[in-house]
Amino acid sequence: MALISTLTPVFVAILCVVVAFILKTKRRSESPSAQKSSGGVGKRTEDRPWVDEDLQDDTEITGPENEENDWAETGTEDLPHIPYTPCRYPEEEMLERSKHFYALLNKRRSVRFISPEPVPREVIDNVIRAAGTAPSGAHTEPWTFVVVADDETKHKIREIVEQEEEINYKQRMGDKWVHDLRRLRTNWVKDYLDMAPYLILVFKQTYGIMPDGKKKTHYYNEISVSISCGLLLAALQNVGLVTVTSTPLNCGPQLRVLLRRPANEKLLMLLPVGYAATDATVPDLTRKKLEDIMAFV
Amino acid sequence: MALISTLTPVFVAILCVVVAFILKTKRRSESPSAQKSSGGVGKRTEDRPWVDEDLQDDTEITGPENEENDWAETGTEDLPHIPYTPCRYPEEEMLERSKHFYALLNKRRSVRFISPEPVPREVIDNVIRAAGTAPSGAHTEPWTFVVVADDETKHKIREIVEQEEEINYKQRMGDKWVHDLRRLRTNWVKDYLDMAPYLILVFKQTYGIMPDGKKKTHYYNEISVSISCGLLLAALQNVGLVTVTSTPLNCGPQLRVLLRRPANEKLLMLLPVGYAATDATVPDLTRKKLEDIMAFV
Repeated sequence: MALISTLTPVFVAILCVVVAFILKTKRRSESPSAQKSSGGVGKRTEDRPWVDEDLQDDTEITGPENEENDWAETGTEDLPHIPYTPCRYPEEEMLERSKHFYALLNKRRSVRFISPEPVPREVIDNVIRAAGTAPSGAHTEPWTFVVVADDETKHKIREIVEQEEEINYKQRMGDKWVHDLRRLRTNWVKDYLDMAPYLILVFKQTYGIMPDGKKKTHYYNEISVSISCGLLLAALQNVGLVTVTSTPLNCGPQLRVLLRRPANEKLLMLLPVGYAATDATVPDLTRKKLEDIMAFV
Repeated sequence: MALISTLTPVFVAILCVVVAFILKTKRRSESPSAQKSSGGVGKRTEDRPWVDEDLQDDTEITGPENEENDWAETGTEDLPHIPYTPCRYPEEEMLERSKHFYALLNKRRSVRFISPEPVPREVIDNVIRAAGTAPSGAHTEPWTFVVVADDETKHKIREIVEQEEEINYKQRMGDKWVHDLRRLRTNWVKDYLDMAPYLILVFKQTYGIMPDGKKKTHYYNEISVSISCGLLLAALQNVGLVTVTSTPLNCGPQLRVLLRRPANEKLLMLLPVGYAATDATVPDLTRKKLEDIMAFV
């Protein structure tokens, strides 16, 4: 008992250290979820606030444990059903159509050399309309397409994107300085963000606001919006316009603020859109063969 | 001092509780990263092993800190460039094409009532070819389309999917038992998995194996494969076939094993494909208007 009594201050000291450690650990493990539940925006506005913000949307990862897997029914259970008789083609025509569509899409390439020539606005409206026909989890249609035609805004977007690219590249330079010098300028400077008549910034709505003001997670929002981008790419190819798929991860929040989008929207893709420049080039790459992407059972 | 001495056993007790709590907290916060760094596959094969495996792919979340954002250049820097002169249409034709394509896609609906009538295999080949033209991060083409025509395999797939759905629904029943009864059967029983002439199971390749045997993370694999699915949906609609987009989250690993796909592939989507049944119905829903999905700057 006497020994224990003398050790009391030691116990108190250990207890203090331990409590401090718990508090530290707890704060660290809590912070991602706290940011998440707050919508993840506007919390960390100090010192390079944009870098990690996009990483807070783990919608696809936590997954809809109790959600239905079947997008068609979810959220539409209470709607009446109506007959659906889609267009049907004779086998031969079907085969022809499948060949032509493949041939059309197979000519598509990601193009960085975009002509500044104007493109009719109505065409852009229609390709966005086409993109908006994509299926989405619980029919939430969780996409916003911000079409930027204004030169000043395009230039601001370019500055933000290039600034982040520069940071990326400079960090990378530590590793393989000389080898990357050649690549550096090509990748970092993005003329096409000024040149293209339109920039389409595709935002995913990570959650919605219910009538009672509560947040409703949009499950599968990233998958849904990516599918929608697939339709957009097909629609652009179909009218003879080009683009390059880019995912400006770290600039998302800055661009969101610039374009005054609400906090529930996160930038998923940035697509410069226009005619190909007359001197456009693309890397001489090939696509995998059918047998390398398909298995038949 | 005397007071402190009498309180010593209390301090000791508190210390014990606190240490136990730390250990518990630490173990919990360590486990996800431990799974992550081990590649996330084949570790937890006991007691309902399939449930969480899909959740371990955090490719999209950790993000390519040092990767380029521009998919066109990444991984293709060393390829020679060749001229690219895509098809160009007069403005009027362009506008017509954009209208027609939108009209085509706007008729697409997710359909659960699929006719068992056979569909030419060559058409399926061509829609998969079309899907394979999607852009992908670093041109990794991280997709595998498993086309199942074999009746027995289709039935096994149905059993796996319905079993997981049943678990989902039974868990949900705890909350709102009676209300869900009506919905239950409709959603849980998936006839179309037997009926449809083809099931297309779309796998994302979360990493690749380099020549030296090392793993190479496929950044943006989920986005790339989802874009590819968008092209697939457009291609199916173009030939008059129907499907329903489903994301059988929890059955992915079981289906992967059934279809003998390698460990780097994760199921992203399951699409039953065929003609619409003559009595097919769809929920009477509408799509958002252009002004609700587009902002113009």
